[in-house]
Amino acid sequence: MEEQQLRQILDYINKGEISLEEILLAINEAPYETLENYAKLDLLRPIRNGFPEVIYGEGKSNEQITNIFIHLIKHSSQVMATRVSAEMASYVQDRIPDLVYNPLARILYFDAEKNRERNKGIVVITAGTSDIPVAEEAALTAEIMGNQVERIYDVGVAGLHRLLSFLPKLRIANVVIVIAGMEGALASVVGGLVSCPIIAVPTSVGYGANFNGLSALLSMLTSCAMGVAVVNIDNGFGAGVVASRINQIAKNKQ
Amino acid sequence: MEEQQLRQILDYINKGEISLEEILLAINEAPYETLENYAKLDLLRPIRNGFPEVIYGEGKSNEQITNIFIHLIKHSSQVMATRVSAEMASYVQDRIPDLVYNPLARILYFDAEKNRERNKGIVVITAGTSDIPVAEEAALTAEIMGNQVERIYDVGVAGLHRLLSFLPKLRIANVVIVIAGMEGALASVVGGLVSCPIIAVPTSVGYGANFNGLSALLSMLTSCAMGVAVVNIDNGFGAGVVASRINQIAKNKQ
Amino acid sequence: MEEQQLRQILDYINKGEISLEEILLAINEAPYETLENYAKLDLLRPIRNGFPEVIYGEGKSNEQITNIFIHLIKHSSQVMATRVSAEMASYVQDRIPDLVYNPLARILYFDAEKNRERNKGIVVITAGTSDIPVAEEAALTAEIMGNQVERIYDVGVAGLHRLLSFLPKLRIANVVIVIAGMEGALASVVGGLVSCPIIAVPTSVGYGANFNGLSALLSMLTSCAMGVAVVNIDNGFGAGVVASRINQIAKNKQ
Amino acid sequence: MEEQQLRQILDYINKGEISLEEILLAINEAPYETLENYAKLDLLRPIRNGFPEVIYGEGKSNEQITNIFIHLIKHSSQVMATRVSAEMASYVQDRIPDLVYNPLARILYFDAEKNRERNKGIVVITAGTSDIPVAEEAALTAEIMGNQVERIYDVGVAGLHRLLSFLPKLRIANVVIVIAGMEGALASVVGGLVSCPIIAVPTSVGYGANFNGLSALLSMLTSCAMGVAVVNIDNGFGAGVVASRINQIAKNKQ
Amino acid sequence: MEEQQLRQILDYINKGEISLEEILLAINEAPYETLENYAKLDLLRPIRNGFPEVIYGEGKSNEQITNIFIHLIKHSSQVMATRVSAEMASYVQDRIPDLVYNPLARILYFDAEKNRERNKGIVVITAGTSDIPVAEEAALTAEIMGNQVERIYDVGVAGLHRLLSFLPKLRIANVVIVIAGMEGALASVVGGLVSCPIIAVPTSVGYGANFNGLSALLSMLTSCAMGVAVVNIDNGFGAGVVASRINQIAKNKQ
Amino acid sequence: MEEQQLRQILDYINKGEISLEEILLAINEAPYETLENYAKLDLLRPIRNGFPEVIYGEGKSNEQITNIFIHLIKHSSQVMATRVSAEMASYVQDRIPDLVYNPLARILYFDAEKNRERNKGIVVITAGTSDIPVAEEAALTAEIMGNQVERIYDVGVAGLHRLLSFLPKLRIANVVIVIAGMEGALASVVGGLVSCPIIAVPTSVGYGANFNGLSALLSMLTSCAMGVAVVNIDNGFGAGVVASRINQIAKNKQ
Amino acid sequence: MEEQQLRQILDYINKGEISLEEILLAINEAPYETLENYAKLDLLRPIRNGFPEVIYGEGKSNEQITNIFIHLIKHSSQVMATRVSAEMASYVQDRIPDLVYNPLARILYFDAEKNRERNKGIVVITAGTSDIPVAEEAALTAEIMGNQVERIYDVGVAGLHRLLSFLPKLRIANVVIVIAGMEGALASVVGGLVSCPIIAVPTSVGYGANFNGLSALLSMLTSCAMGVAVVNIDNGFGAGVVASRINQIAKNKQ
Amino acid sequence: MEEQQLRQILDYINKGEISLEEILLAINEAPYETLENYAKLDLLRPIRNGFPEVIYGEGKSNEQITNIFIHLIKHSSQVMATRVSAEMASYVQDRIPDLVYNPLARILYFDAEKNRERNKGIVVITAGTSDIPVAEEAALTAEIMGNQVERIYDVGVAGLHRLLSFLPKLRIANVVIVIAGMEGALASVVGGLVSCPIIAVPTSVGYGANFNGLSALLSMLTSCAMGVAVVNIDNGFGAGVVASRINQIAKNKQ
Repeated sequence: MEEQQLRQILDYINKGEISLEEILLAINEAPYETLENYAKLDLLRPIRNGFPEVIYGEGKSNEQITNIFIHLIKHSSQVMATRVSAEMASYVQDRIPDLVYNPLARILYFDAEKNRERNKGIVVITAGTSDIPVAEEAALTAEIMGNQVERIYDVGVAGLHRLLSFLPKLRIANVVIVIAGMEGALASVVGGLVSCPIIAVPTSVGYGANFNGLSALLSMLTSCAMGVAVVNIDNGFGAGVVASRINQIAKNKQ
Repeated sequence: MEEQQLRQILDYINKGEISLEEILLAINEAPYETLENYAKLDLLRPIRNGFPEVIYGEGKSNEQITNIFIHLIKHSSQVMATRVSAEMASYVQDRIPDLVYNPLARILYFDAEKNRERNKGIVVITAGTSDIPVAEEAALTAEIMGNQVERIYDVGVAGLHRLLSFLPKLRIANVVIVIAGMEGALASVVGGLVSCPIIAVPTSVGYGANFNGLSALLSMLTSCAMGVAVVNIDNGFGAGVVASRINQIAKNKQ
Repeated sequence: MEEQQLRQILDYINKGEISLEEILLAINEAPYETLENYAKLDLLRPIRNGFPEVIYGEGKSNEQITNIFIHLIKHSSQVMATRVSAEMASYVQDRIPDLVYNPLARILYFDAEKNRERNKGIVVITAGTSDIPVAEEAALTAEIMGNQVERIYDVGVAGLHRLLSFLPKLRIANVVIVIAGMEGALASVVGGLVSCPIIAVPTSVGYGANFNGLSALLSMLTSCAMGVAVVNIDNGFGAGVVASRINQIAKNKQ
Repeated sequence: MEEQQLRQILDYINKGEISLEEILLAINEAPYETLENYAKLDLLRPIRNGFPEVIYGEGKSNEQITNIFIHLIKHSSQVMATRVSAEMASYVQDRIPDLVYNPLARILYFDAEKNRERNKGIVVITAGTSDIPVAEEAALTAEIMGNQVERIYDVGVAGLHRLLSFLPKLRIANVVIVIAGMEGALASVVGGLVSCPIIAVPTSVGYGANFNGLSALLSMLTSCAMGVAVVNIDNGFGAGVVASRINQIAKNKQ
Repeated sequence: MEEQQLRQILDYINKGEISLEEILLAINEAPYETLENYAKLDLLRPIRNGFPEVIYGEGKSNEQITNIFIHLIKHSSQVMATRVSAEMASYVQDRIPDLVYNPLARILYFDAEKNRERNKGIVVITAGTSDIPVAEEAALTAEIMGNQVERIYDVGVAGLHRLLSFLPKLRIANVVIVIAGMEGALASVVGGLVSCPIIAVPTSVGYGANFNGLSALLSMLTSCAMGVAVVNIDNGFGAGVVASRINQIAKNKQ
Repeated sequence: MEEQQLRQILDYINKGEISLEEILLAINEAPYETLENYAKLDLLRPIRNGFPEVIYGEGKSNEQITNIFIHLIKHSSQVMATRVSAEMASYVQDRIPDLVYNPLARILYFDAEKNRERNKGIVVITAGTSDIPVAEEAALTAEIMGNQVERIYDVGVAGLHRLLSFLPKLRIANVVIVIAGMEGALASVVGGLVSCPIIAVPTSVGYGANFNGLSALLSMLTSCAMGVAVVNIDNGFGAGVVASRINQIAKNKQ
Repeated sequence: MEEQQLRQILDYINKGEISLEEILLAINEAPYETLENYAKLDLLRPIRNGFPEVIYGEGKSNEQITNIFIHLIKHSSQVMATRVSAEMASYVQDRIPDLVYNPLARILYFDAEKNRERNKGIVVITAGTSDIPVAEEAALTAEIMGNQVERIYDVGVAGLHRLLSFLPKLRIANVVIVIAGMEGALASVVGGLVSCPIIAVPTSVGYGANFNGLSALLSMLTSCAMGVAVVNIDNGFGAGVVASRINQIAKNKQ
Repeated sequence: MEEQQLRQILDYINKGEISLEEILLAINEAPYETLENYAKLDLLRPIRNGFPEVIYGEGKSNEQITNIFIHLIKHSSQVMATRVSAEMASYVQDRIPDLVYNPLARILYFDAEKNRERNKGIVVITAGTSDIPVAEEAALTAEIMGNQVERIYDVGVAGLHRLLSFLPKLRIANVVIVIAGMEGALASVVGGLVSCPIIAVPTSVGYGANFNGLSALLSMLTSCAMGVAVVNIDNGFGAGVVASRINQIAKNKQ
């Protein structure tokens, strides 16, 4: 179908328009779908980004989410929405029974290939128990995108031996997602122990000088360890995507 | 009537007062109306600013809003209040049935000339679906002030071709209002594509390092593209006013 | 020549490439010029943005600036560089004698049509004497872009009558650029007096709680007056561009 | 009684203690009253500060407030508590019927001399209607402390003539309290018009780049006008105290 | 002469102009003096604000400062400039020998009535030795404005008895200026000891979490003591003006 | 048992593993307990840190807290959880009746040795009544850890004599915990009066420029007095731990 | 040699120490080298992290840097120091002639295998010319670590077609490093175009509301595009390391 | 002599003054020495705080420092000044040859008892080489105050085994000072390993999101480990004082 769309685009072009605008317009006219005036679904995204458009749940109505799911499911085997409340999930599931909701990760998703083989190589670790919702968002995102995820939770630096006992698992990972609030020191400590890339997720767990995750964010950005890259505060989803893309490289090269 | 007021002012002056204070006092005594001790309605604003005083809904009581509407409607064909909750709107509409309420834009307004001709030339675009309430505040403001508005929603930079397909509409605009949260990159990308002025509105859509709109605000202020000016976070109203004034220039010169 | 380039682009397209990437590549191959590996001069900008690429002087070497000028002058009647030090200007002028340098505005520019007619309608006002360099950057930018500029300096709100004496000039402007440091109150006061759009430029003039322009920036963004849009701290250039674009609308419609 | 307390202190001292600590201890033992372990009422404050300890309502229980009132009323003709909710006020008034509650100012107070003569000289002005609660806190504080207050509300700089019409009242004040949110420009404009001290109160009225009053705070601190001093955001009480003290000087010197 | 100017203004008015702009223009035409295009000297300021326009030294050239002094001296017995470097002072004094320069306060001033009687009542205290330059700016400002100033330096709260030994002097003041860097606690402690208004000046003395004066600024704004108002960081001048105005009330009422 | 665990560790090592990872793994395998996948209880903490792992209540479910208590109680005579709501406490106490809940300190704890002797030497003082909850968290923490605590509440610097009357108690302390909101000046004043270490706890008591405790935090960090160290905003627990450790030194050396 | 060290560690262990501390001590005694008291060179880092310790040039003396190089070169084929000034580089090169200095990247390095084969797959792009020094730090870091790097400079979003013409190169990358100052929008736009991971580096290029890179940092952290992870402001080195690790995965799997 | 001063104070008191002010004045008149008007040397500080007033070098002139040293040396065996430049030190040493200057710590001091016995128990550790100047300030401060200090430098968390090899030294300390810039994770890791109090010093080592030490400061304040208290950024002196006071407790109890 993608091939077909490109041919259609060329048809537009070959009609001989002159202005640059019209050419660009022609190229781009087809491959998105307009839902009333509130959404323009980007149907080229799987080709460009390797995964269909992900729905950001906040600030959308139940009706809008439902409609977007209905349209995206037509084109893709996997579709997911993040930051979805239990109420919203329940509303949408009533209308699209195929969807699955994970309340901890707050992700609502559709997966037509639940039993496909998944790639090993991603480890998700948290400093504390309170960081687990963000970790689940990261892990589930990576799983929906075709990966198998190792979870290691509550191994903060105040009790280093807990972390060290998982060194063998860390050493064979393709990528480690480190999730921590408060001072976020876990990212630096893990950074000192492995040779794969680390995706650090600061969380808003903490109070006072944590300033809603600022302390962990600045801490992770200024880590003294090599190999640490950072995503937004509480952004488990973003970390899951980056990790999945890194893990995909290993697969593609096999 | 305005003429008359100025004459009245001159009468005061010609009585021959000597101190500067009294002169200024005389000049200014007439043209505002005092509602008890909570409001001084500025009746000269249409002459100075081209539009009557706009009511800021937050922090006012239902009674105050109602009273201010009652007085302003006497002097102007258009009167509007922003940041009005549905409850407040309902209260005021019960007492002044001519008012219209737009719940998405949270604007309550009076328009005695609903069918007048409106000026084309303003385009409002948003990066995402969640930015639409701010966009509607901007668009409706411009419409009440006499303009016709083209709305293009959900064309964020993660799927550039959606935006590019609207290039012809962007290229003929007198002014484009760009509304985006998160990193606000849409303002810069549009800035690179058009030659008219751009009014950018950062929104508080996002979380974490968005810091309630700070990321989009700083981003838009430091845009690498030329021709971008910025209004306050979530300030659709402000953008609507500036765009209307710009669009008015085109009309006045016709 | 521009027409010719578009035809050349179509030639590329009509050769029948299939992939979207190649098409886009073809479209865009021609119209920028690569200087070694440090700059890609955007030759389409006059068409898209109505003015050739403006050179940002900071962080570039004397040689780079000189080379960029040499190439841009070939294609445009006006070329300008901002944030240019006197030393850098002197170096470049030794190699390209046609350039003019304004040390107050720190702008180095080429203008092949110095005597063309310019459009009236832009007023630049400052709160204090120390804001004048930013004002000159704004005014000169607008002048190079084809406008005539009225300058009104040192009319801060601590002596309101100075500002009020210029009301007739403010009232007939198409756009007013207000430049102020410290608390930036001038933008709000002017906002209360005129009906045209206002472009406010916060400056870093001040100390302590000014925090390098933050006080004026926040003040202007939260102005209680209608019709105020803001550009970056000390960004006279940006204000000049927006004002020029607004003023151009008036001209275009004549 | 004050005389008596000092004599009592001297008695302690003259007993001949040697260590510095014990002397200081003796001096200070008497003049505060301990309520269980949650409060130490400072009974010397009228002598040192000219007014009894003022109760800060937030973070205290209904029982604590009631008890503190009961004890302070024994020693003073005026006692006041700020930031008192309507519920708390109702609870306390049920137990101490002599108290008066002002819901707008959120002040609960006792005044045994309601009809005493009060000093003229304080003017309180606000930029908008939404600033009135802070203004009432300031005005009522000054009134309880023995002053007569002139209120001028909703005279923001977007309609300068409203403010200018009150110039005669401003010019004869001993002190002006200026209360404004958003960009707080009113303080600077008033600062340019009067020769008495100005106490500026930034309010948290506004949104976005207002950052809960930060814009008005920084603006007032960096005012280009002379004679402006600032108190905390929304701190009407603090402004009332400073203004009362300034006004007291005039009285004392009569 | 001032009288004369007002008459002249009335003459303009009585000629019968109609538009509000022209009237205001007429009123304000006379009483400021334009120096080329860089300054508009406000000659009405002594009448409105009780003291002629004060020159802010930073960002002005030696020539500009000299010229402004030459013009202001013609109309006033006292003229002062703040934030003047030793080099600038030397340049201006070479051309206007009557000026005096205080290098600690960085004030350059003219005083035609050096021996006039001055009003007692202002006390300036500092927490440390490093705060003295700001204190001298405050004290000298108040002195030039006609006050006599008591200086008490280096009495920070780490050695409370130093401060307490000056209680008698503090208790008879009309106003106390408290100048402190670091945590600025001195303002609160003095606030607990006196019943006159306190003008607090945070200084940038300190490092690290002082953040160029932010710690002292926030500390003074949130003081638990009554009667404290704050000016900008390092703004000795501003404190001197407010204190002088307060002290003037006492004098005027005598 | 601790001895035994170390022997077990050596056994692992003596089996002759070669890789560093396995050795470290062996060393650390034993001494933590895994609760499903949400917690890894660090059983070595009493040995390393002198007190068992403390449970951070926020972000954990009732079931999780209950389970963690059940497991920790098996190994320790004292176990505590902070930031526990009354509802959560009630839930856990229903299942583990031995627990005690202090609603002011929001601490839920188990103490098998309630009547053991405790060490004198810790003083906890607050500036105001509203700071008491944080103070109780600090005091109770220190008590659970084996100390006796002297409480002195509501002795803020606005009434210095209240504080001074407790000098004898302050002078004999091993460590003083100073708890204050607003401008936090109490830490500096106490710092000037004692020769033992001071642990300062900024609280979020206040409003406006307090910025949720930032003013007190910066103030305490930049204190002009010697001997002051700071913990997080509202972190009574942290201060209690540090104070207990300091007080322990005195005991250990006896 | 590494094997040998581990054996040596086991020898220590097998001697039969009992306390955990001594075991850990033994394990760790050998593999770092102490230079006087200012540095402890971590000789295990190549094994743990895949690359020897990288020297951070700032805050070290010429002598210290020289000595650290001398010791690290003994154990590794590649050694590098970042943030090295030209003066420092010259000093060290005089003593160790084998070192190479890249003044743009400010990296001083040793590479014993300059002609080894390098892995393709990393693309470095910048928004502007002023971002090139940071880009060179990233690119050279990746090259020293064994990769081949494609450089694409000055393709900011204000002229999108420049970027689009490089789409084929972006589409085949394993990882893209995006370097941008000002508003950093380039990261989001690239994020919308590729399916590999993106490492974004905000730079401090810009002024005013750029706040030394804060605008680009927040912008990149809140990107609306998937697959973007961020490193510290101006941290080209960090991005180079992460990219190299990602690229290594592809190689390892081949 | 101290005894004598107290007696003198009592003499003053016993004369029978009546007002509280005069009593306090009398008590405090003697024990400080006034140097012109720039300093009031607090001679009671050794009694109250256990150490004479420490001179803060910044913002004082060479003459002032010299004079203060001359006076303090008369009363104390140890006198020290911090933040002293090499130039200032040289000037003062020329006039007071007994002083010693440590250029790394930037401390100038006098110690009449260089060979006295010092107390063991303080360990100072740094994360990197660049943190050493702050560490030396801390260590030397503690030494001058009578302690013996163990220095362990460059043991950051990126190479954990370096730190672990010093565990025996850390375990027997009375107090550990942890000094780290960047993300400051070392404080948390050490916090997890010891049972004594930890004084953490954030340093300004780093760049970008380090924001002059803010990242390390917030990180240390929000540490997940128990027992960590924090002093100001780069405040080695403050940490040395607190550590000395803690270590003193051990000594006093022996």
